Amino acid sequence: MKDEFAFIERVKPSVTYQSSLVMGIGDDAAVYRGTSDMDDVVCVDTMVEGVHFRRDTLSPQQIGKKALAVNVSDLAAMGASPLYYLVSIAIPPSWEEEDLTEVYQGMHDLAKEYQMDLIGGDTVSTTDALVITVTVIGRVERDRKLFRNQAKAGDIVFVTGNIGGSAAGLHLLFKKGLKGQYSSEEQQLVLTHQEPMPQVKAGRIFAGSFLRISLNDISDGIASEANELAEASNVQIILNLEKLPLHPAMRFYSMEKQLEWALFGGEDFQLIGTIAEENFSLIKNACSVAGIKLTAIGQVECGSPSVIARQGEEVFQLDKKGYNHFRRG
Amino acid sequence: MKDEFAFIERVKPSVTYQSSLVMGIGDDAAVYRGTSDMDDVVCVDTMVEGVHFRRDTLSPQQIGKKALAVNVSDLAAMGASPLYYLVSIAIPPSWEEEDLTEVYQGMHDLAKEYQMDLIGGDTVSTTDALVITVTVIGRVERDRKLFRNQAKAGDIVFVTGNIGGSAAGLHLLFKKGLKGQYSSEEQQLVLTHQEPMPQVKAGRIFAGSFLRISLNDISDGIASEANELAEASNVQIILNLEKLPLHPAMRFYSMEKQLEWALFGGEDFQLIGTIAEENFSLIKNACSVAGIKLTAIGQVECGSPSVIARQGEEVFQLDKKGYNHFRRG
Repeated sequence: MKDEFAFIERVKPSVTYQSSLVMGIGDDAAVYRGTSDMDDVVCVDTMVEGVHFRRDTLSPQQIGKKALAVNVSDLAAMGASPLYYLVSIAIPPSWEEEDLTEVYQGMHDLAKEYQMDLIGGDTVSTTDALVITVTVIGRVERDRKLFRNQAKAGDIVFVTGNIGGSAAGLHLLFKKGLKGQYSSEEQQLVLTHQEPMPQVKAGRIFAGSFLRISLNDISDGIASEANELAEASNVQIILNLEKLPLHPAMRFYSMEKQLEWALFGGEDFQLIGTIAEENFSLIKNACSVAGIKLTAIGQVECGSPSVIARQGEEVFQLDKKGYNHFRRG
Repeated sequence: MKDEFAFIERVKPSVTYQSSLVMGIGDDAAVYRGTSDMDDVVCVDTMVEGVHFRRDTLSPQQIGKKALAVNVSDLAAMGASPLYYLVSIAIPPSWEEEDLTEVYQGMHDLAKEYQMDLIGGDTVSTTDALVITVTVIGRVERDRKLFRNQAKAGDIVFVTGNIGGSAAGLHLLFKKGLKGQYSSEEQQLVLTHQEPMPQVKAGRIFAGSFLRISLNDISDGIASEANELAEASNVQIILNLEKLPLHPAMRFYSMEKQLEWALFGGEDFQLIGTIAEENFSLIKNACSVAGIKLTAIGQVECGSPSVIARQGEEVFQLDKKGYNHFRRG
């Protein structure tokens, strides 16, 4: 680390070693204890100012929280327990020490929820946009059966929580800005966008069941994620749009808008997956006990990889992006 | 990954799963098998175009090679075997597909040396400078004793290989550019800068010895790294400048220049460390058998954390940076 960023060492939330697995942390490397009982899972994601986030829609603290959340969501989709994170940050002259403190605080706030330890990273300077790269490491049971390519004909398609809220919130933020006046329902949508919660608990229930479950997190919208599941598993997925758990705070908007946000908006960070029909109620109950809503939204059929959406009498093919890709069935 | 960068999937060297530990790789996460016999080591480093590298001193292939090398060097300083790497890259419009292919090829070339697998990453767009963040994961024996804070009074200070060559090479590159005419000795210096080799084999010998060894890799120059060892171990380090293994291809330059490059230049990626005097010849022999030069360059004494340099009758205090910090003893 260059001396000009020495303050980062001070502003970083102190490393708490909540996990006894951490053996030691140098300036350049962290050592943690391996275990033969579990598989390790590692994910890395980069967020660029102006591309993935803007300062007029997220506070610095929310930028940090989200940078960690998108990675933790990748762990959740593997059914893994989050353990550690590392933060590499490229800082342009336009960012003040105070705001960077908030970015780290935001990551720490989310990390606390999962007792994750910050075990390393790098701090460098850059000329233009803030670039935050977060690496997360988690662990999952050896014989879990959660992969994108596990969907089979006859499976139920399910989704956790509500969807569409993040895109609706972003729509509001673009219209009214960070300091706009929001109704309490609008505020819910805005927060859904600004402070998404990765579905770690749901992922752990799925992994712990040792049932065959195909799984994806919703970063790019249901349409995109369902297409990824269909491609990875070589199946056709049928979605019943009337069953989608649309975020209730979107109710003042047209159904067309609500569906657009749910299908193509993304950043809901809920989980979408498939499971054998006979196991669905079992897993739905397990989720329910843990306070997690699980909704059946369709089924898996044989066929060339694709996603078909039904709405009343109408049948469309759903591509990854946008209504313009809709075709009459 | 955005569709505009789909070509990265094609240009990335195919994942070879050289390690049977890798269980599977999704788009967003990689799973690898844990082991209870070893500790895991993780490092992350970011290189920013215009700050850490320039296209007029390194080819795209060398940029990739170096981005991985700086991380592998951190693993070497922990005595770890490199296993996996993840690459997160933020791409500005100024970079062509062809050059990015070369960047990945350069990483692959170095990874092959250590049979490392590329197991994940992220590809995003940015506006200005190319930003490459590499995460590496390695493993090291549980009871190794390699940490910066292990130096004790009476220890020998040692360094692997030759030093100063990288800074001398950069000096030449600034003068003559990538396509300049270089003598064979100048070419050696230029390559030392462009394609540094991390000292993994030496690190593995140190870790496998289970001897108490304090260790650091030379990324910022001997003066800086020795000060870090002194601070972490709360000791005084005495360096005998006449013993420094100056890169022989620097011989046409003044001794003053050679010392400046060795002490303050950095990016040699050799290892500097300390070991009990009675164990030095043991470890020197083990290195020698493996073709690694190990040179005693000083000793550790009691005293407030500092680095003292002796040259003939003269004694200086060596700060982390530059000759202007020298003080007559």
